[in-house]
Amino acid sequence: MSDLIEELLAGKHRALARVITKIENRHSGYRELVSQLHQHTGNADVIGVTGSPGSGKSTLVDKMAATYREQGLTVGVIAIDPSSPFTGGAVLGDRIRMASNVGDMDVFFRSMSARGSLGGLSTATTDAVKALDAFGKDKVIIETVGAGQNEIDIVKTADTVVVLVPPGSGDDVQMLKAGILEIGDVFVVNKADLEGANRTVQELQEMLEYRDGNIPRTIGHHGAGGMDSTTESLRMDAETDGWEPTIVETVANRGEGVDELLSVLEAHSQYLDESGERESNTRMRYAEEIRTLVREDVNDLLAEELERRGGLDAYVQQVLDRETDPYAVSDELVGPLADCVREKREE
Amino acid sequence: MSDLIEELLAGKHRALARVITKIENRHSGYRELVSQLHQHTGNADVIGVTGSPGSGKSTLVDKMAATYREQGLTVGVIAIDPSSPFTGGAVLGDRIRMASNVGDMDVFFRSMSARGSLGGLSTATTDAVKALDAFGKDKVIIETVGAGQNEIDIVKTADTVVVLVPPGSGDDVQMLKAGILEIGDVFVVNKADLEGANRTVQELQEMLEYRDGNIPRTIGHHGAGGMDSTTESLRMDAETDGWEPTIVETVANRGEGVDELLSVLEAHSQYLDESGERESNTRMRYAEEIRTLVREDVNDLLAEELERRGGLDAYVQQVLDRETDPYAVSDELVGPLADCVREKREE
Repeated sequence: MSDLIEELLAGKHRALARVITKIENRHSGYRELVSQLHQHTGNADVIGVTGSPGSGKSTLVDKMAATYREQGLTVGVIAIDPSSPFTGGAVLGDRIRMASNVGDMDVFFRSMSARGSLGGLSTATTDAVKALDAFGKDKVIIETVGAGQNEIDIVKTADTVVVLVPPGSGDDVQMLKAGILEIGDVFVVNKADLEGANRTVQELQEMLEYRDGNIPRTIGHHGAGGMDSTTESLRMDAETDGWEPTIVETVANRGEGVDELLSVLEAHSQYLDESGERESNTRMRYAEEIRTLVREDVNDLLAEELERRGGLDAYVQQVLDRETDPYAVSDELVGPLADCVREKREE
Repeated sequence: MSDLIEELLAGKHRALARVITKIENRHSGYRELVSQLHQHTGNADVIGVTGSPGSGKSTLVDKMAATYREQGLTVGVIAIDPSSPFTGGAVLGDRIRMASNVGDMDVFFRSMSARGSLGGLSTATTDAVKALDAFGKDKVIIETVGAGQNEIDIVKTADTVVVLVPPGSGDDVQMLKAGILEIGDVFVVNKADLEGANRTVQELQEMLEYRDGNIPRTIGHHGAGGMDSTTESLRMDAETDGWEPTIVETVANRGEGVDELLSVLEAHSQYLDESGERESNTRMRYAEEIRTLVREDVNDLLAEELERRGGLDAYVQQVLDRETDPYAVSDELVGPLADCVREKREE
C-alpha cells in the first residue's frame, strides 16, 4: 500500500486532500490509489443534495454538516460545480471558513469542477467519495446544482437523494419534471417562511401524488403531518409500502427544520438497509462503474491506435474519396482487437 | 457485389425495400451491403423535417414529395417513429396509399422504428439514407417527431434541417429552446391560416434574432418579405453573411407555401455547395459515423468477452466482496486488448 493511503487511513486530512487532488487531476498513479481505497469503503452513508442556484443549498448543507457534528458524526462534503473550469477559488475559500466555524476539521469540504468532460467528473466524484468513505467519514454529502443530465447522473450515485425547491418559483417546480422528480427520495422546500412556500409545497405534493399514486408526507409549517411526525412512523410506512417520498420544510439560515430533515434521512437510510435496496443499488452502481471505466479505457486505447495510424482525418478523407467506407474503417480498427482476443482464448 | 445491390443499383424498388429491411433488422451481412452501397452515394440532397405531433408534418412531407415529382425529381422518405416498437402497421399503410396517389413509385416511403436502442436507430437511419442515395433518389427526406436528443441527433445528419412549428402553441415555441432552434436552417409555421399564426411567427423571429443577431427572413402571409421573395435574393444574402435562417408560412393541406419552401431549400442546398459547408459537414458526419461504429463494435467485442468470463454480475459480486475493485476489473478486461495492440505494432 502507498504511504499516502496509509496516512489517509490513519486519519490525516492532508493526505485525504492530496488523494482527492490526484483523483481530480487524473494524476499518474491515481488508479492504483482508488484501487487501494476500495477495500476500505462501504461504511459511509452518501447523501446527494441538488437544487437550483439560489435555493439556499450551501446554507442547508452547512447546517446539516454542523448538526451531524453535534451528533458526534464525521462529515465530508463534495460540492460539484460543473460550470466552473477551475477548482477552488472563492467558493472553496468561503466553504473552508464555514467549516472552521463548526469548530473542527471533521467537516471536510471540497469543491470539484469540470476540468475535462462531465463524464470524467462523474467518475472523479465517485472516486472522491471512496476516499472520504475509506477515510472513515460517517456521512458524505455530494452537493450539485440540479441542472443537466450529467449532474442528475452524479447525484444519483448517492444512497439518498435530497432535492431542494425554493418557494414561489413556478419555474423550479417545472424543472422537477425534467428528471429530478424521478430521483428524489426527500424534497426540501427551503425558505419555507417566504410567501409562496405554501403553493410550492402544494404543487410538489400534486406532482409526487401523480408520480406515486399516494399523497406524500409533508413535515413542516404547511404539511398536515406537522412538526411532530417521528422517524418511527416513517419507518413503519416504509416497511409496508416501500419508501414514500417526503417533503420537509426548512428555513436553513435559521436552522429550522434541519433536525427533522436529518430524521427523515436517517429513516431513509434504515429503509435502504431493511428493504435490501442499499445492496441492490450498490450492485447497480458497481456494474455502472465497471461499464464506464471499461468504456473510457477502450476509448483511450482506440484513440492511441487511431493516432498511430495517421488520425481520424486520414480515414475521413478516404471515406470521402469513396476508397473505403465507415464500416470497413471500423473493421480495420477493431478487427485486430477481435483477432487478439480470440487468439488469447485458444492459448 | 451482391445480386441484391446490383438490383438496387438497377432501380428495382423491391431490392431497395429488402436492403432497408436488412439494415433495420441488422440482418447478418447487412454491413457488407452498406459497405458496397457507400461508393455509389454522395448525390442525394438529404432534408430533415422535424416537428411535434399535430404540426402537420406528414401532410407537408407528402406535398413536398409530390411537388418534387412534378419537377421530375425522384424522392425517398424515411419516417422515424421512435415511440413505436414495431415497424409498419397503420402508419406505413397510410403513407403507402399516399405514395400511390402521387401516381408512381418514385416516391419511396418507409417508416423505421426503435427496435433496439435509439442509438442503433440513428445508425440504421444513416445506413438507410445511403441505400436511397445509392439507388439514385434525388431528394431524401428524413421525417422525425422532434422530441428528444436522439431524434435531434438523427435529423442533424441531414444536409438541410426544416423545423415545423404549429401556430398558436406557446409550448411548441418553448420546445424550440430545447435544442431544435440551434439546428434549424429553415423554420416552417404550418397551418398559417389559423388564429395565432401571426404571434408564432413573431415569437420565432424574436428567438432567431436572439440566436443570430439578425432579424430572420419570413416568407408568407405575416412576413415583411411577402410571397414574392425569390431564390435569387436568398442566394445573394447567403454569399455575403453565411446562411440566414428563414421562416416560411405554409398551409400544407391546401398546398400553400410549398413551392416557396422548396425554393428556400434549393437556395440552402446551393449555399452549402458554394460555401464549402456541404463538404465540411460531410467530413464531420463521416468522422462521427466512424466513431459510432467503432464504439458499437468494441462494445460488442467486450460484451462477448465479458460473457465468456462469467458475466458482469460475477465481477460485481467480487467488487461487493472487496476482492477486487472497478479499476482492477477494467484492467483485467481491457489489459489483454492493449497488450495485443502493442504486440501487433512490434511485429
